[in-house]
Amino acid sequence: MTASFHSPLGATSFSDDKMQKVNLYESAQMFCDVYCLLPGQSQKPHTHDENDKVYHVLEGVCEVEIGDETQKLEANELAVAPAGVVHGIRNKSGSPASVLVIMAPHPNFNG
Amino acid sequence: MTASFHSPLGATSFSDDKMQKVNLYESAQMFCDVYCLLPGQSQKPHTHDENDKVYHVLEGVCEVEIGDETQKLEANELAVAPAGVVHGIRNKSGSPASVLVIMAPHPNFNG
Repeated sequence: MTASFHSPLGATSFSDDKMQKVNLYESAQMFCDVYCLLPGQSQKPHTHDENDKVYHVLEGVCEVEIGDETQKLEANELAVAPAGVVHGIRNKSGSPASVLVIMAPHPNFNG
Repeated sequence: MTASFHSPLGATSFSDDKMQKVNLYESAQMFCDVYCLLPGQSQKPHTHDENDKVYHVLEGVCEVEIGDETQKLEANELAVAPAGVVHGIRNKSGSPASVLVIMAPHPNFNG
């Protein structure tokens, strides 16, 4: 695959240290990452005032919190956090999880 | 699932008439659609001057054209068309295909 074509599950990288973010693409308009969560790892709830975020689970199971709602998402399920809405993700399962994450616009792009 | 949580493969809608676009979410920052392509259906190559587009195949097989490169993508493979780069998608297989499509920013959002 080239810079335009990606196999996200082939790009995963896990660390016992913390959740890993593998970047596939970025521009001023967006970033497209793969978040790689071992059991117990998470991204704590936080908010972006001007950026939307989409979580799309590729493998495994994650709990995703959007505003005051939390749901367990499996592969091929997704969640959207609109700008200004608190959101976070946790892997409370016993297996690794990989999640495609797209944020728009990019919060801090240095082209 | 609520407005924040979606199961894209449960939202697919196919038509013999043409490729269907099912919207899951939209804002000024992005849209998130599922493109539903029966065998032989396509979105012709075109360009957006200021918008990036991500195609992420959910099921089936599609040919995706980005600039001067065309690749066959299966489930869990993705392609990125940066702003200004010609792109298109075709289902040349014998089975239906569903593709998660995110464009940022939204090209014509009417909030």
